[in-house]
Amino acid sequence: MASLHFADKLTDAIRQRGNSLCVGLDPRWDALPNEIRNQHTEVNLETVANAYETFCLEVLKVVAPLVPIVKPQIAFFEGCGPAGLLSLQRIIIRARELGVLVLLDSKRGDIASTAVAYAEAAFGGSTFGGTAHPVWNADAMTINPYLGKDAVEPFLEAAQKEGRGLFVLVRTSNKGAGLFQELRCEGKPLYQHVAEAVGKWSQDTVAESGFGIVGAVVGATHPQELASLRQLLPDVYFLIPGYGHQKGTGEDVAGGFREDGLGAIVNSARKIIASFDPDDSQWRDAVERATTEAIADLTANTPMGNISKP
Amino acid sequence: MASLHFADKLTDAIRQRGNSLCVGLDPRWDALPNEIRNQHTEVNLETVANAYETFCLEVLKVVAPLVPIVKPQIAFFEGCGPAGLLSLQRIIIRARELGVLVLLDSKRGDIASTAVAYAEAAFGGSTFGGTAHPVWNADAMTINPYLGKDAVEPFLEAAQKEGRGLFVLVRTSNKGAGLFQELRCEGKPLYQHVAEAVGKWSQDTVAESGFGIVGAVVGATHPQELASLRQLLPDVYFLIPGYGHQKGTGEDVAGGFREDGLGAIVNSARKIIASFDPDDSQWRDAVERATTEAIADLTANTPMGNISKP
Repeated sequence: MASLHFADKLTDAIRQRGNSLCVGLDPRWDALPNEIRNQHTEVNLETVANAYETFCLEVLKVVAPLVPIVKPQIAFFEGCGPAGLLSLQRIIIRARELGVLVLLDSKRGDIASTAVAYAEAAFGGSTFGGTAHPVWNADAMTINPYLGKDAVEPFLEAAQKEGRGLFVLVRTSNKGAGLFQELRCEGKPLYQHVAEAVGKWSQDTVAESGFGIVGAVVGATHPQELASLRQLLPDVYFLIPGYGHQKGTGEDVAGGFREDGLGAIVNSARKIIASFDPDDSQWRDAVERATTEAIADLTANTPMGNISKP
Repeated sequence: MASLHFADKLTDAIRQRGNSLCVGLDPRWDALPNEIRNQHTEVNLETVANAYETFCLEVLKVVAPLVPIVKPQIAFFEGCGPAGLLSLQRIIIRARELGVLVLLDSKRGDIASTAVAYAEAAFGGSTFGGTAHPVWNADAMTINPYLGKDAVEPFLEAAQKEGRGLFVLVRTSNKGAGLFQELRCEGKPLYQHVAEAVGKWSQDTVAESGFGIVGAVVGATHPQELASLRQLLPDVYFLIPGYGHQKGTGEDVAGGFREDGLGAIVNSARKIIASFDPDDSQWRDAVERATTEAIADLTANTPMGNISKP
């Protein structure tokens, strides 16, 4: 049954690839290769959605053999309306066919039956007439904790039932994150309260790999906090955004890993999928080079180098 | 130019209808009228999406003449995948044609270009090739503040530019909301810090009506807090969920209004759009009755009764 547990699946995938780089699928019209943009004479929601799909499928071909997990950002697909979300569906299907895990970055948060609707859509499918109808069918998703306990629980139940994972926003990588996350609440910053709640939600779900299915989003731009949260939450996977484009380096994210090289996935989007000049017809090579460079940086400068291949 | 400012548009609409009830469009397959469900022999994402659309368009016919604003919950449309989101687009277009304001309940929250993508989709349209391509085209949306200052600003900028409004989650109506919202941070609960930030964001945008374009979501299940937040934020519109189905009464929400009857919109979803037995062919009458009953309750038991019609 190990294969049904998200943290075990993720750990297996990391060991198999020998790294825990996550490639962010955040397509932007202005940064697409011209050879893809030029396939469309008109620019509208449908053509942009098609171009995003073509681009992401090509990126998947390059990165799926190299990394354990990819992270589509749903906002950019929502930006193309229903057509964009149809493209997202197809991209996720292809990613799964290619054997790479899919973390849907949607930062959802709501209560009761609304949270159930989001969770079912993200994971096993929406229940209508007693049957589950798959929508996004992702392996994991990001969620926002502000609404509290009963806003997280429906996501947790759906994830447990379906062998999927959650990453709860704890400490984000943006400059203005501190406005609330750094407020000192009953002796410690707010984000630490959220981290402790994540630890509690996670601990009942720890499986063979030693990790639970509830992870934490902790930005690369806070290296000391990453290290202290790593101590606080030994059995929680971290999703670390802000590496690469947001100036986080391998050294900055090192504290997010356990000594054995597990426990963190490091996301890089723009530095990989916008690593080329739009005019460059060799853009696939640039994507591959940027991916292997990021893996080499993390291998050299973080405990990720300790991961033993199977 | 008053018509370009969301708070002025909302205030005009409230004065014109003589009430500030918001009807929540949260369609659920199991609660639809059978005459709509039975139009579909198969149950799949497309047929459920079609049924949601048929139902919501019928509800709009009934409620658009009665209330100033409706609030579609995007989660239920996302639950039907791209087809559901196409239905949502059509429902919003029809609502605007019928002259009722649309508050998109999506509780989005993200940073930088991702937040811009969400905000453009919600309001004026996604910018591709220098042109805005409308996606949801709502009058206002709900957002989640956890990511902090620079996660709110892109939404604020888009709203200001396009004459739209925001409602920031401050104090939610669910039982487990207190896990973080009630933490005591530097002398006061977290939600009050968020409320003060909302007040600041709002104050620079106050227009003719005396209100700014940044509102606050404050649940009906916390009557005392509603009243004290009303004092703290005199020029901020409140969206009050939890009235009706979640047991909030007219008396519970009274504290959310200003003396002049303005300042709050009160949402009711299930108690209106699921106010009938699915077998009842007279379900439209039930929707109309539930709407007028809610208006009567709020008129009798809150300062909303003081709104002077134009």
